[in-house]
Amino acid sequence: MTTNNHNLIYPQIQNLNVNSFARIVSTGIGLPEKVTTNQDIIDRYHLFATDRAVQYTLGIKERRWVDPKQKLTQLMARAVTECLQRAGVGIDQVDRIIYSKLLGEYQIPASSVALLRELKVDKGIPAFDISSACSGFMHALDMALRYIGTGDDYVMILGGGITSMVNQSWNQPDPKTVFMFGDAIVAMLLEKTNKKHFLASYIFTNHLLYDNAYIPMGTTFLNSTATKFGPGTYTMQIRDGRVIHNSVVESTQVLADKLLQATGLTIDDIDIFVTSEQNTQIWEAQLDILGIPREKSRSVFWKYGNTVAAMSPLMLDELITSGQLERGMLVMMMAHGAGASSGGCIFRY
Amino acid sequence: MTTNNHNLIYPQIQNLNVNSFARIVSTGIGLPEKVTTNQDIIDRYHLFATDRAVQYTLGIKERRWVDPKQKLTQLMARAVTECLQRAGVGIDQVDRIIYSKLLGEYQIPASSVALLRELKVDKGIPAFDISSACSGFMHALDMALRYIGTGDDYVMILGGGITSMVNQSWNQPDPKTVFMFGDAIVAMLLEKTNKKHFLASYIFTNHLLYDNAYIPMGTTFLNSTATKFGPGTYTMQIRDGRVIHNSVVESTQVLADKLLQATGLTIDDIDIFVTSEQNTQIWEAQLDILGIPREKSRSVFWKYGNTVAAMSPLMLDELITSGQLERGMLVMMMAHGAGASSGGCIFRY
Repeated sequence: MTTNNHNLIYPQIQNLNVNSFARIVSTGIGLPEKVTTNQDIIDRYHLFATDRAVQYTLGIKERRWVDPKQKLTQLMARAVTECLQRAGVGIDQVDRIIYSKLLGEYQIPASSVALLRELKVDKGIPAFDISSACSGFMHALDMALRYIGTGDDYVMILGGGITSMVNQSWNQPDPKTVFMFGDAIVAMLLEKTNKKHFLASYIFTNHLLYDNAYIPMGTTFLNSTATKFGPGTYTMQIRDGRVIHNSVVESTQVLADKLLQATGLTIDDIDIFVTSEQNTQIWEAQLDILGIPREKSRSVFWKYGNTVAAMSPLMLDELITSGQLERGMLVMMMAHGAGASSGGCIFRY
Repeated sequence: MTTNNHNLIYPQIQNLNVNSFARIVSTGIGLPEKVTTNQDIIDRYHLFATDRAVQYTLGIKERRWVDPKQKLTQLMARAVTECLQRAGVGIDQVDRIIYSKLLGEYQIPASSVALLRELKVDKGIPAFDISSACSGFMHALDMALRYIGTGDDYVMILGGGITSMVNQSWNQPDPKTVFMFGDAIVAMLLEKTNKKHFLASYIFTNHLLYDNAYIPMGTTFLNSTATKFGPGTYTMQIRDGRVIHNSVVESTQVLADKLLQATGLTIDDIDIFVTSEQNTQIWEAQLDILGIPREKSRSVFWKYGNTVAAMSPLMLDELITSGQLERGMLVMMMAHGAGASSGGCIFRY
């Protein structure tokens, strides 16, 4: 296996020195109704591909794409509403909202502020967006632990977004990624509690992979070829998919080592493994490197695709709603952002 | 005065329930060398304007614009390097990097990861970007207090960005904003300390103003008129400048009330007032509403313009380097994001 991270010095894992503990109350999802199959995409863009080949290569059968009139904030509001209903908590009780975005509704203001408008909230809840691609939800989760640890009672975090509009707007899709990405938002509510649920949390970045997978839109793009806008400006450019695969597997091992070391647990103590799956093989490879049986996790890539920061929490939501994850179980949850950033935690659900 | 916030219920101010206190060690700035005067802009774009009229209307004389070959991460690295040199701290001692961006280098990965590459750091320091427009630095600062409060020793925060490249790329500037914005990055290092420096911190959002000032680029734009790209897609669209002016003044009063209430201080106890100035009049109006004399602050709008999240920390850096702000003084620092988001704190420098 190619080692992508070999020059990297991993930060030491830190104790969470909090004054109050946090626990996950509930999750909620915001999905477009419309299921888009591989065949739908092949037909729409007249692509030389077959459903069978796409399923074989990527492991994806279908994904959700928004109706072009559907807004990001509508999906966000749907996820938050479901999450709050499951918790029996009102939005006015929420102290802070953190949204891990890909493309926001606008570039600024923050889309989390647009969410408050969509929900017609009276309270001026502190709300901002963060940006860290596929690992963004783990950054938001780690941050929520700190906010609850220093005073907040309830923190709502969200991840995911709409990627399909780029392809839907231009009708010139990038065949490398058009099948891969899906639209989804996941919300999670955390609350203050008197028992330690989160046993460890760890995040690191790997700038050696900064240029391997990226969305060009930004100042670098404006500095170079600002006249040639196209779908490629707004969609993920992937130089080498094997680098992503290998770095995700390596990062999985690093995260697991750090988290187990900090908690004194072994991998066999983990009841449920939740992660980001850039494709089905990457999910399998993560389980294999850690020696975790398939039954302790649940791939949802086949029906949602790569939903960026929503991948890990979508898997978690599926594990909860299916009944596979029960209160009291030990969960190792992680997410990997195309190698450039990884985060994970161990918590008792 | 028009009241923009009258329907808003302000969140209660919270005690910072931290296990470790934080203090500001140092700041550092990353500015393009090139000073761009009003006359430079008038000449370059053949605008019907005079230097005198621009100075009179906006209060701006000059601003920094990057050389088109200059990259965002170069300015970021310059700010961080100066900040670390002033502190006598090595980058490897930093536990976390938070960058409040406008347009990042790429959309993803995070530009804070690109900064690590630019600095050739070996350690995989956790790093991510946040997005909350002009108030973003206060979000990052509040977050740094939480991270240090729960375990970090050193947190580096950055704010600002490059806005000029949009106008420089298209050569069709928006006359409403072309004079207003400047390029700048400011870095700030915070460290763990055993004395309470930050006495209170407060943030709120106002979604009623979400649509008054925005940068269209995002899913909303893709959902509507994706074929008509232009400089307006990437530059601030301002519906009503008076709404911004009035909401900033109102928000200044709200923040000051909350912060003084939480600390038991009066406005006369404040030695130095630092804020964001969308123009010179907005700076003056904030001082006037609070009854703070001009001598307790220092406008830098005339030479830097609107540098988005860098505005407040640029003013702070100027106050420090000029010797006006001395250790032990009480500072009220705030920033306002076009009305949609405001944040502030009181700290003993």
